[in-house]
Amino acid sequence: MIQKGRCNMQESEMRAYVEQLCREAAGVKYAVQALTTEEKNRALMRAAALLKERSDEILKANEQDIAAALQSGMREVMVDRLKLTSERIDQIALGLEQVAELPDPLGEVLDSFERPNGMKIRKVRVPIGVIGIIYESRPNVTADAFALCFKSGNVSVLKGGSDAIESNRAITKVLKTALAECGIPEQAVQLIDIPSRQAAAEFMQMREYVDIMIPRGSAGLIRTVVENSRIPVIETGAGNCMIYVDKDADLQKAIPIILNAKTQRVSVCNAAESLVVHEQILDAFLPLLSEAVKNRVELRADEKSIAYLPDAVPAAEEDFGKEYLDYILSVKTVSSVQEAIDHINRYHTGHSDCIITENREAAEAFLKQIDSACVYVNVSTRFTDGFEFGFGAEIGISTQKLHARGPMGLAELTSYKYLIEGEGQVRG
Amino acid sequence: MIQKGRCNMQESEMRAYVEQLCREAAGVKYAVQALTTEEKNRALMRAAALLKERSDEILKANEQDIAAALQSGMREVMVDRLKLTSERIDQIALGLEQVAELPDPLGEVLDSFERPNGMKIRKVRVPIGVIGIIYESRPNVTADAFALCFKSGNVSVLKGGSDAIESNRAITKVLKTALAECGIPEQAVQLIDIPSRQAAAEFMQMREYVDIMIPRGSAGLIRTVVENSRIPVIETGAGNCMIYVDKDADLQKAIPIILNAKTQRVSVCNAAESLVVHEQILDAFLPLLSEAVKNRVELRADEKSIAYLPDAVPAAEEDFGKEYLDYILSVKTVSSVQEAIDHINRYHTGHSDCIITENREAAEAFLKQIDSACVYVNVSTRFTDGFEFGFGAEIGISTQKLHARGPMGLAELTSYKYLIEGEGQVRG
Repeated sequence: MIQKGRCNMQESEMRAYVEQLCREAAGVKYAVQALTTEEKNRALMRAAALLKERSDEILKANEQDIAAALQSGMREVMVDRLKLTSERIDQIALGLEQVAELPDPLGEVLDSFERPNGMKIRKVRVPIGVIGIIYESRPNVTADAFALCFKSGNVSVLKGGSDAIESNRAITKVLKTALAECGIPEQAVQLIDIPSRQAAAEFMQMREYVDIMIPRGSAGLIRTVVENSRIPVIETGAGNCMIYVDKDADLQKAIPIILNAKTQRVSVCNAAESLVVHEQILDAFLPLLSEAVKNRVELRADEKSIAYLPDAVPAAEEDFGKEYLDYILSVKTVSSVQEAIDHINRYHTGHSDCIITENREAAEAFLKQIDSACVYVNVSTRFTDGFEFGFGAEIGISTQKLHARGPMGLAELTSYKYLIEGEGQVRG
Repeated sequence: MIQKGRCNMQESEMRAYVEQLCREAAGVKYAVQALTTEEKNRALMRAAALLKERSDEILKANEQDIAAALQSGMREVMVDRLKLTSERIDQIALGLEQVAELPDPLGEVLDSFERPNGMKIRKVRVPIGVIGIIYESRPNVTADAFALCFKSGNVSVLKGGSDAIESNRAITKVLKTALAECGIPEQAVQLIDIPSRQAAAEFMQMREYVDIMIPRGSAGLIRTVVENSRIPVIETGAGNCMIYVDKDADLQKAIPIILNAKTQRVSVCNAAESLVVHEQILDAFLPLLSEAVKNRVELRADEKSIAYLPDAVPAAEEDFGKEYLDYILSVKTVSSVQEAIDHINRYHTGHSDCIITENREAAEAFLKQIDSACVYVNVSTRFTDGFEFGFGAEIGISTQKLHARGPMGLAELTSYKYLIEGEGQVRG
């Protein structure tokens, strides 16, 4: 048993430890795939109950993380993300209960057809196998990610942030206990509890055991995983979301949508970062905007628009490509819908973009040509979210085009296989 | 214009050239996405006609490749794969015409729902963008891959084998001419015509411009791409396909299925490589098998089965994990369906596996638990193929679980996006 002092592990020991955890995970994947919906739900409910029962133990572990964070001079907002309370643990438990209540995605027949030679083909939804998740400070991700992977029939191997290591250990211990109590192999959730980047790097090489890797966190974390993983990655994250206010916009809709998309929560990926405005409505619209965001949002405006925005500062070209995650909004003027589309496709991150217009032709062009996971007409970009879409869960928002795009719920954590049945058919 | 002597390019020049080709491809992707089905079909038909019209030019280029291949001492079977004839060019042209006749996958509404706040969400099928294809000798892949990518609204960047470079240049020139004649940017198909591994290595780094990478060819090529690509890869290929003959098998079905799966074409990924046999039928079944494959297939048998197979040689444990692509078949004895399933999941490549049984319970267990793209009951594994599945096309057979699994047709070359429409909805 290696329990303490993992910081001091040698590289080869670390690799062996990470490999062991991943191999154990792969070793139980078929057992997890064979579980019935009821067995999975029972384990999730037991885990929820046990998290609450053993909250003292979890809070104590969390205190160690908090103490270490304060000692290292962590910023207050980051310490808050790390901190657990009884209420937060109740929320985590509630999350597990909600996942238990979701329909099981497995077994769904996605397609079914018969070939001229009489063989019958069904395409059915199956688990992926072993899912790796690399994430940052928030310890609630440990339970959330496990629950979504488990409900969709997958084993999860988790690598949380070093800051939350004691909290993550305590939560994982409870999850494993709940599994064991329900007769399920506790390797169905594995925690790589080594506070080291080297461990993450080793984890990303475990292609033999881990089927996909999902990074959750900052743009830097996601880039590191994309660049270094030998396991297929689902890229989530960065959102430079843009709103185009067309010449045929209803300005009474525009202002509330922009305020909501920009200010309801500035630190999230579906918050708006840039406005694109048709030149014909600069005079009618920009004074309304200026008034609406006064003293709340810094506007960085291009040459044509700045004349109508007394409080704005000049925008540099780079501004249009920035995900501020702050009370800042860039403003760009265009002379047509097509110019707006081209500008957005050039600078956005392919996450969520919106057109505000009453003109059907403009809306259609925007919907067809904008190359984003979510394209909106007269709706705030803040709705790009698994819960808001009605998926009942969310493991992340994919900004890539392979496998899954946009909000990812349980179905996006599955694959499919073809089942072919016949009576002795051979190929001629 | 860099035209000749690309072998002598310096590394930095090579990178710049590969990047230029990829950037040009990305630069026309929205123009290609905007094409109507009719415009795409017209271009495909024109390309087919032009390939036939200009077959002399293509054959002349091919002769250069053949001459170089002979001079380098290439094996005869490989020279044959490289060789074009008028008939083969007609086949290539026919392939383009067939793709033109397939339904356009784009625009399909995959899902549609309304949320309680009144916003309407549609999930629609869209192109991926730019698809990179890395392949080996056969020059027909140049036209095939272009056609499938183009019909599904994607731009293709092709890197063929060095041996076929002149043939690929000639074919690509014709394809580009056909596009240009139809008013479509000729950068919709790009050929990286540098006969160098370094060029392929550079290509795999072009994540900024290329959305996905599909390797087509040998296991070695696929491994190289999987290990080196920074662009998401769809892994295709290796097939260690296994057939389990259950104790409740109809042996009159078993023999033709095994003969077909093993011998109809031995060099393909959906050919069978291993038999798994229930111990209760060794005496009834193995003599029939021995007779059926006599002088055609080398049997490599485990200790229990070899007693019933006079011509067999002993199997080593590694035999069960081998994709022979030859007239060789390994034989393994098991004592239950579950042991067969566990053995297959351990040694197969997740491509195609088959159970031969009349027992419904055994069939169900096999269908549920075998972790392969295609799982068969009483049908030859040779049917794992886009055409045999009725997809009308095939870009490859995916053995991974992300995005696409099994035969990949036009639909598997697409992604989706969400279109959300409303009347001013904001998030509370």
